[in-house]
Amino acid sequence: MSNSFQESKIKIIMGQGITYPKGLKAAGINCGIRVKRKDLALVYSEKIASAGAVYTKNKFKAAPLWITKDNLTRSDGKLQAIVVNSGIANACTGEKGLQDARDTVNYVSQYLKVKPEYVAVTSTGKIGEFLPLEKIKTGIQEAVKKLSVTGGTEAAESILTTDTRKKEIAVSFDLSGKEIRIGGMAKGSGMIHPDMATMLGFITTDIAIESNLLQEALVEVIAKTFNMISVDGDTSTNDMVLLLANGLAGNSLITAKNEDYDRFITALYLIAEYLAKEIVRDGEGATKLVEVEVQHALSRSDAEKAAKAVINSLLVKTAIFGHDPNWGRILAAVGYSGAEIEMQKVDLYLKEKIVSDGQPLLFSKEIVRKYLEESPEIKIVIDLKIGEGKATAWGCDLTYGYIDINTKYN
Amino acid sequence: MSNSFQESKIKIIMGQGITYPKGLKAAGINCGIRVKRKDLALVYSEKIASAGAVYTKNKFKAAPLWITKDNLTRSDGKLQAIVVNSGIANACTGEKGLQDARDTVNYVSQYLKVKPEYVAVTSTGKIGEFLPLEKIKTGIQEAVKKLSVTGGTEAAESILTTDTRKKEIAVSFDLSGKEIRIGGMAKGSGMIHPDMATMLGFITTDIAIESNLLQEALVEVIAKTFNMISVDGDTSTNDMVLLLANGLAGNSLITAKNEDYDRFITALYLIAEYLAKEIVRDGEGATKLVEVEVQHALSRSDAEKAAKAVINSLLVKTAIFGHDPNWGRILAAVGYSGAEIEMQKVDLYLKEKIVSDGQPLLFSKEIVRKYLEESPEIKIVIDLKIGEGKATAWGCDLTYGYIDINTKYN
Repeated sequence: MSNSFQESKIKIIMGQGITYPKGLKAAGINCGIRVKRKDLALVYSEKIASAGAVYTKNKFKAAPLWITKDNLTRSDGKLQAIVVNSGIANACTGEKGLQDARDTVNYVSQYLKVKPEYVAVTSTGKIGEFLPLEKIKTGIQEAVKKLSVTGGTEAAESILTTDTRKKEIAVSFDLSGKEIRIGGMAKGSGMIHPDMATMLGFITTDIAIESNLLQEALVEVIAKTFNMISVDGDTSTNDMVLLLANGLAGNSLITAKNEDYDRFITALYLIAEYLAKEIVRDGEGATKLVEVEVQHALSRSDAEKAAKAVINSLLVKTAIFGHDPNWGRILAAVGYSGAEIEMQKVDLYLKEKIVSDGQPLLFSKEIVRKYLEESPEIKIVIDLKIGEGKATAWGCDLTYGYIDINTKYN
Repeated sequence: MSNSFQESKIKIIMGQGITYPKGLKAAGINCGIRVKRKDLALVYSEKIASAGAVYTKNKFKAAPLWITKDNLTRSDGKLQAIVVNSGIANACTGEKGLQDARDTVNYVSQYLKVKPEYVAVTSTGKIGEFLPLEKIKTGIQEAVKKLSVTGGTEAAESILTTDTRKKEIAVSFDLSGKEIRIGGMAKGSGMIHPDMATMLGFITTDIAIESNLLQEALVEVIAKTFNMISVDGDTSTNDMVLLLANGLAGNSLITAKNEDYDRFITALYLIAEYLAKEIVRDGEGATKLVEVEVQHALSRSDAEKAAKAVINSLLVKTAIFGHDPNWGRILAAVGYSGAEIEMQKVDLYLKEKIVSDGQPLLFSKEIVRKYLEESPEIKIVIDLKIGEGKATAWGCDLTYGYIDINTKYN
């Protein structure tokens, strides 16, 4: 990612999301899958949009992911509408699940009057249950009527499961005199919740960009944001991030990795990082956001391994919940991460420098304990001092709350 | 492992451990590292023994592991004594830590009158603290005086940290008219506990077997026992399993993988599996032992990946603690394990058959819930139906108790 573009030139708009870019409408309603909370979101772009998509690597990929993938192939990477339901994941549902996802697409196609291959379908919720198709059909009719340019926030509310709050953000920036807007929303509190599932992200923009570059931009940004977070290490069957670009901003079409592309990717990165961090901040039972930065690893991949091992370590997570400056657990996680290390070179920082050249330093346990107690965000830096690889990962602490949420009956 | 040898011909002796084989003595004492509990164990074989050893793969391997490895190289795989302290892990302690481990070896060498290269040293406890050498020196003198053929149980008590009970077992079997004895002890409750560390296993036998075969037998058995358990997924800096064979049983020396070797490995497997299961049964905060068997995977390695993903899944672990028949979490873990699967072939059993050919079956949630509530051991079987690979892994549930233990200040 280019750093030539100043982030200060990006305007951040809180309280806005996927309907902030031009030509985007959305709605969020209750269609009766869940008792009271909104459970169906519809997103619509006036103009057919280029689309990028990334899917879970879980081999039990849920039915809606297969159908969305198939539609994107048939439409040559174009989309005009996204339908999302919460409450039921439509995962592990076999042939019937696939047909239900196809039917859902067809309802949207029928009531919105767009080709079925321009519709993406996504679900989040209980695994192994079937969608109530009649409710969904009626819900889609209602959502179509309610589509509005201010509907982004209601849509962001409709996709939540165990989340305690909605997650949305928008930004704008200038590209040769044209204002470009990007908006995003996400959900995901546990990778899978008591029968509930999934991390979902939706990003819309009015930038004009070629489909293949849009997909490349998404993959590059996801790798450093959504793919660098973990609440509990469990990869869902339903994870998906979709990015729509409808070109209505009127900028000259981006066809190469030029300066415009760099500006776009910087803004996109900002959106994705914000949403990804919001997900872990709102992780099931979490009281702290934990940021782990690994510097000077042998490679980016090694740095990722080490950073992810630390944020996934139950012992690190419980130590942070207990405000315990137990640095040995951090090094132990780095040690089993699979990353190349030279023990006698490793530095570790947790508020203070705690380990230097692999040797423990005298440090004030009281100061570090106070930091762990009082700061809502905990930063851990590990400097391996053997290469140029760098990565940052985000996680949260492991608390009684997580166990509470995940031991309850459905 | 050969199945031709009936396990029924192996006599199991509970309440006995590493001093059950001929020529073995041990002692366990308090040397002052810990306030009251025993913290120093010494094991001694009258006759120099062939030794096998496996060490943690954590790159922050603790000082005693380096010294033991070095001694075994210099002694050509022979050992006569093992010293273990609990309370301090001597990990992440740099050059001084290595010298402290060497000094510990030298005290044993001096007071026991054995060559230093015949001494193994191991530690478990807080990371990043130095050993109190004077206390250890005095402790070793005392332990040498107390060495006895009934000292195995006291030794087994001295190596514990957060464990709630000692773990030891012995077996005997016949080899061409000679009685062969094997005894073992282990510790390990969390991979790393609040500053405490480590899974340790010690197995002794009076069988006569060539060194290289002994090591091969150990590696083969460990791969299917100690390496198939997990409490929290955190690999310690201090893990080690040592196996001593002093040949005093008088059997004709085993020099090939013949029937005698098969009999030995079957008995060894029994000891190792018992100790490994005891460790997870006594996992920090655990209320259930969870056994996951994966059948008909593409390979043994794939079966291991899938079984380990399930026992390590926080969502599976919390579901079991909550007695929640949440089978979707089990399949999701199999799906992200990296093992090859074909969704539409997978069968899942949890008390009943729950999934058939990848499709959910109607099953009695009440019966499964009752099973999860009442059975102290939970068995999960996943049949992938695509190959001949098979593996079993053992874990435990994730409870409030685990968080309690691991958030406490040191």
